[in-house]
Amino acid sequence: MDIRTIEWKNNSIKIIDQTKLPREFRHIYIKDLRALWTAIKELKVRGAPALGVAGALGVYLGIKNSREKNFTEFSKELQKKAKYLASSRPTAVNLFWGIERMCSVAIENKARPISVIKRLLFNEARKVIAEDRLACRRIGHFGAKLIKDKDTVLTICNAGILATIDYGTALGVIYKAKQAGKRLKVYACETRPLLQGARLTAWELKRKDIDVTLICDSMAATLMQQGKIDKVIAGADRIAANGDTANKIGTYSLAVLSHYHQIPFYIAAPGSTFDLSIKTGRGIPIEERKDKEVTELFFKRPITAKGVKVFNPAFDVTPHNLITAIITDKGIIRPPYRENIAKILGK
Amino acid sequence: MDIRTIEWKNNSIKIIDQTKLPREFRHIYIKDLRALWTAIKELKVRGAPALGVAGALGVYLGIKNSREKNFTEFSKELQKKAKYLASSRPTAVNLFWGIERMCSVAIENKARPISVIKRLLFNEARKVIAEDRLACRRIGHFGAKLIKDKDTVLTICNAGILATIDYGTALGVIYKAKQAGKRLKVYACETRPLLQGARLTAWELKRKDIDVTLICDSMAATLMQQGKIDKVIAGADRIAANGDTANKIGTYSLAVLSHYHQIPFYIAAPGSTFDLSIKTGRGIPIEERKDKEVTELFFKRPITAKGVKVFNPAFDVTPHNLITAIITDKGIIRPPYRENIAKILGK
Repeated sequence: MDIRTIEWKNNSIKIIDQTKLPREFRHIYIKDLRALWTAIKELKVRGAPALGVAGALGVYLGIKNSREKNFTEFSKELQKKAKYLASSRPTAVNLFWGIERMCSVAIENKARPISVIKRLLFNEARKVIAEDRLACRRIGHFGAKLIKDKDTVLTICNAGILATIDYGTALGVIYKAKQAGKRLKVYACETRPLLQGARLTAWELKRKDIDVTLICDSMAATLMQQGKIDKVIAGADRIAANGDTANKIGTYSLAVLSHYHQIPFYIAAPGSTFDLSIKTGRGIPIEERKDKEVTELFFKRPITAKGVKVFNPAFDVTPHNLITAIITDKGIIRPPYRENIAKILGK
Repeated sequence: MDIRTIEWKNNSIKIIDQTKLPREFRHIYIKDLRALWTAIKELKVRGAPALGVAGALGVYLGIKNSREKNFTEFSKELQKKAKYLASSRPTAVNLFWGIERMCSVAIENKARPISVIKRLLFNEARKVIAEDRLACRRIGHFGAKLIKDKDTVLTICNAGILATIDYGTALGVIYKAKQAGKRLKVYACETRPLLQGARLTAWELKRKDIDVTLICDSMAATLMQQGKIDKVIAGADRIAANGDTANKIGTYSLAVLSHYHQIPFYIAAPGSTFDLSIKTGRGIPIEERKDKEVTELFFKRPITAKGVKVFNPAFDVTPHNLITAIITDKGIIRPPYRENIAKILGK
């Protein structure tokens, strides 16, 4: 069975409820913007590229029933809904990128009837979906060349099918390498606090018949020390113009550990994850999430004393000097990053 | 209320059941060796120094009702029970050290009546307890000198009251520094898979009015990157003759991260944690524990797909070159370790 993380179906946004995995594989149909906002906030749909699609589809969902007849009013409504949707999560730039694309299409076509603009917006959202599918396969194509037969790859969080439409970025590289006949072993970091590695990546890789072993995040260093890791590949939530990369909390730790053990450390991400308006990682806003994610396992069972303080950043920033290369849909970008990102992305 | 992690009471070994903390503070009375073996295996009592005491008290518990009248038979029984007790966990050397001390006392007094030997064994176990209490306070005394006013210390697992009789090694340093009037902030790594940091350290520090903040293990690197950590102090389960140190899984990771961020990384442990019969960390046996510790949160709720493979080492080995100093009850040991360990421990 092929799965789609997010798509347009029955006049609504159809997603897999990722908070239920791996116990339950369940779709939900989102029919209004508030429900989408909550689904994003609660990580029912997550992963930077999937959030780009959610942004695009979300804008369409938000305005498809608009009764405004003139562009000024329609545009006001569009901007308001776009702003609301963008307030769901702050770090992954793809969300804003998806929303922005939609807003641009509206503005570029402001002379046309609202009904036409709505159709163009729907087409744009479908284009975002098609582009994500292609971009992931191209990331896989370029990245697979870096993988040798019998390599063991370490990954964190979920940068797979469930973070994109249907293929993955970091895991897309794995899928493509396997398809090319390379034998692979993957170690998946469980990725505390919300366990996307344990819940999503292990499930997804197992389903795709990839040899996967689950570890706690603190065990990665030991595997490296024992010479068991050949490569580390992670996804990204936002990449600054100099290559500094925000990704799931724990990524920076793996980058430092890779550096110490002289293991190549790769980031895999589509062009939409680059934010060239931000010069360095310092400019990337880092979401801090609820204490309960740490203090209670899935908000059910307290694991610490009442009132214990918590620090719970959802992401960290890996400075570019610790990144061996960035695997994109336009090709592999190597240092010096500032020059090569500008060159290869042609922005 | 002062607490005792392990003591002799009502003709049995009285321990705090640490698997119940922090939800429930409950003592259990252990009346036979099989129950002690299980309590150790299941981490109802844990922490290297506390296991040293468990080893000593356990040997006494095992033979106190022996009906053997001649030493040869008594010694056979003693050895058998000692061997059984020693099979509960393989890494923390203190367990074997505690057991060995008892066996030596028996052999040294083999000419005496069995009843006398039993009394001497009881006294020896009480001596182990008294020595642990003193050693922890001496570790605190030496270690506190390394702490500056307003320092922020990062720690992992639990090397506190609950890992010793009543004071702690790494946390003993914190307690002593606070007592000396130094203002301190502590970050406690939650310590997956069994969350000793979240369950025990946060509870214990809060109880002692220390400013503690809980983090997931993967967040330590970010705190270091942000310049928020002044020192890292961890306990130890076994230290080889060259200073290589086995401790809770995740310790090695913190040592590498400290090295990269130029943060002092300290190990705090009593002399009984040194195993000079082992030349380097390679010789230290590392316990691998059940998959379920990783795949199910407290053996209750599966967090990953069925059949996912797991790697679950309970400890890792930090090579001596990443350790700034080892804080012991005999003083602070600095590199070169092989020479200085031999010199300061006088072994």
